[in-house]
Amino acid sequence: MVDKLPGKVLVAQGGGPTAVINQSLVGVVLEARKFPHIRQVYGAVHGVRGIVDEDFLDLTRETTHNLELVARTPGSALLSTREKPDADYCARMFEVLRKHGIHYFFYIGGNDSSDTLRIVNQQAEAVDYPLRCVHVPKTIDNDLMMNDHTPGYGSAARFVARAFMGVNLDNRALGGVYVGVVMGRHAGFLAAASSLARKYLDDGPHLIYCPERPFDPERFLADVDAVYKRHGRCIVAVSEGIADAQGRPIITTLKDMGADDHGNVQLSGTGVLGDLLMDHIKKGLGIKRVRSDTFGYLQRSFLGCVSDRDAREAREVGEKAVQYAIWDDIDGSVAIQRPVRDYSVEYELVPLEAVAGKTRRMDPEFINEAGNDVTAAFHAYARPLVGAALGEGHRLRAPRIASVRMG
Amino acid sequence: MVDKLPGKVLVAQGGGPTAVINQSLVGVVLEARKFPHIRQVYGAVHGVRGIVDEDFLDLTRETTHNLELVARTPGSALLSTREKPDADYCARMFEVLRKHGIHYFFYIGGNDSSDTLRIVNQQAEAVDYPLRCVHVPKTIDNDLMMNDHTPGYGSAARFVARAFMGVNLDNRALGGVYVGVVMGRHAGFLAAASSLARKYLDDGPHLIYCPERPFDPERFLADVDAVYKRHGRCIVAVSEGIADAQGRPIITTLKDMGADDHGNVQLSGTGVLGDLLMDHIKKGLGIKRVRSDTFGYLQRSFLGCVSDRDAREAREVGEKAVQYAIWDDIDGSVAIQRPVRDYSVEYELVPLEAVAGKTRRMDPEFINEAGNDVTAAFHAYARPLVGAALGEGHRLRAPRIASVRMG
Repeated sequence: MVDKLPGKVLVAQGGGPTAVINQSLVGVVLEARKFPHIRQVYGAVHGVRGIVDEDFLDLTRETTHNLELVARTPGSALLSTREKPDADYCARMFEVLRKHGIHYFFYIGGNDSSDTLRIVNQQAEAVDYPLRCVHVPKTIDNDLMMNDHTPGYGSAARFVARAFMGVNLDNRALGGVYVGVVMGRHAGFLAAASSLARKYLDDGPHLIYCPERPFDPERFLADVDAVYKRHGRCIVAVSEGIADAQGRPIITTLKDMGADDHGNVQLSGTGVLGDLLMDHIKKGLGIKRVRSDTFGYLQRSFLGCVSDRDAREAREVGEKAVQYAIWDDIDGSVAIQRPVRDYSVEYELVPLEAVAGKTRRMDPEFINEAGNDVTAAFHAYARPLVGAALGEGHRLRAPRIASVRMG
Repeated sequence: MVDKLPGKVLVAQGGGPTAVINQSLVGVVLEARKFPHIRQVYGAVHGVRGIVDEDFLDLTRETTHNLELVARTPGSALLSTREKPDADYCARMFEVLRKHGIHYFFYIGGNDSSDTLRIVNQQAEAVDYPLRCVHVPKTIDNDLMMNDHTPGYGSAARFVARAFMGVNLDNRALGGVYVGVVMGRHAGFLAAASSLARKYLDDGPHLIYCPERPFDPERFLADVDAVYKRHGRCIVAVSEGIADAQGRPIITTLKDMGADDHGNVQLSGTGVLGDLLMDHIKKGLGIKRVRSDTFGYLQRSFLGCVSDRDAREAREVGEKAVQYAIWDDIDGSVAIQRPVRDYSVEYELVPLEAVAGKTRRMDPEFINEAGNDVTAAFHAYARPLVGAALGEGHRLRAPRIASVRMG
């Protein structure tokens, strides 16, 4: 089995970086280097683009020491791309791979990258180029099918939970309404994570809106009004991808938005949605102090906010990918399962077609009936993923001093 | 001396919260409780507003254990206000203070809060109400006169440095232009902190713009163009308060901005400036992938990003304030001095008038001649403030694989 294909391995990273994507890279490299017949481990620079450009690093010559430092660094150490190959692009890739004698390809990425790998895998079979293709999952959006959760989500969720706890303490001091816009094009997992550091009964976020439920601007105003009347303040978490009942993103009412190669509207890297909702509240409710923040890139790349569990699992999916490809000699996508709720994981290899280009959304039971908060079921699901020592806020408990009447 | 005034102390917090403002609160409370003649330590809820509302907590009855937990919690535990008293407001305050026999007042805050305290102090003398007033400094903007630096800045600077290092790693993977908008109305200290985690020669931010220098949109485009041509990417840090040569904030070309009681334009809690600069770059340079984030409230309240040095100093300014008021029986503002550059601090009490309502800006030597980056002098100044274990990114160092020519 292990000598079925000549011994060169290629690894690359696609799509948006995460805080732990380099753990998966290092998992692939270190595991592949254990096999005696693997002579070289290549790293393609800028994903599939590096293959057609014949731009490779020799990761066989990377020190283990430095690999371990890179593993703890956020961002894609091999750099990334969002390019999507067609038959012609694949033909150019195979020409380069054949020249170098590469027959194992590990691609670390999300939905779009797994779709890229599915295309590459199909084309390799169509032209009879022997290439084991294994997809290594990552996405902060947590929206890969067949997975209980995906590496990258736990750390991003940790950032979002800490950010909202901080904002909650800040907003409590000065009052008003705060809207935090969180990444998540089709799935609300990250916005939902805003709830994970809530502690006291009146802690925010008080309202959470996910793309899984239609967003009604009028109901939204009524929700904010009710919370504001009750607490004198209101903190809202919304997914960037919230859409109306017809499925149109709330943000698309605005013009001049760019689109990437995968046909996605630009939702991140702009404060438009937050400002839109802020104006809506100011005008609709006449509240003066309304603020919005768009968390943007901080939530997927912030240095020093990593879930220990997420980091371990990201390492292991890289290792498992190599084992499936080399021991079992099969193509597919590594998926994380959770046989025990609190908490253990198992890995399995699922067909690329089951994951590629598909989007998983939140279980309906994770969102409350009103569609403006998460449930205890979501907490049971997500709390283990954000790792140890999430942190918490503490309040003064001193008694109030009685008013003094003048005699 | 210590029995000159009856033994009730009042502490309150004003203005925007910070990550370590509760350290100062706890410093005041624990130090005041050490004096045998101090019978009670009051906390006013929502700053000076809590005084006129007679809304006090009895901090004498707070456990030391819980105080230490609160000290490590970001946000203003006593809640805050931006209200600014006039003579009438002060008269109502003194009426309440007299009823309760309070003659020591410690106000933790920034420029506006120190100005509030200056007014209260003047009015107390004018109406002959005996009240020791000591201002305890805090501000993430680091813009208090007479101080080498202020508590709150180090932790916010730590957040900004980490955020930009993460963004740098992210942007390196996918390219394009990134604009990060950082708090700082008149002073660029926080925007300048974006540079503190740079390590490799091509690490971003590549351009940094502070309010101390006029912002020229055309020069800005030329700067971005030059960096983009050199590195294929460009990361920019700008202060929210950047202004043109006439002193008009770049953001005021836009309408519908709210203003707070101190007459300040709303710069934070909106993504407008970032989006404005993003559009400017897209149109002016024809670059497709341009993103902007406005760091907003995360930088002053994020849970779990505290400079150890900042936390210690925040505690100590609270303790010193009590010692000046009770041992020395004088009014003023506690200021941090740095007699040794790397690194020790000393505290002194300066007149309220020297700090109140005034704004310190960055030393000219902290900004480079072109006005688009910071200098080594800034690094020597700021690096000790962000604390230990700032974190760093690591890169792969593997050699490139030579291109293979087909025979």
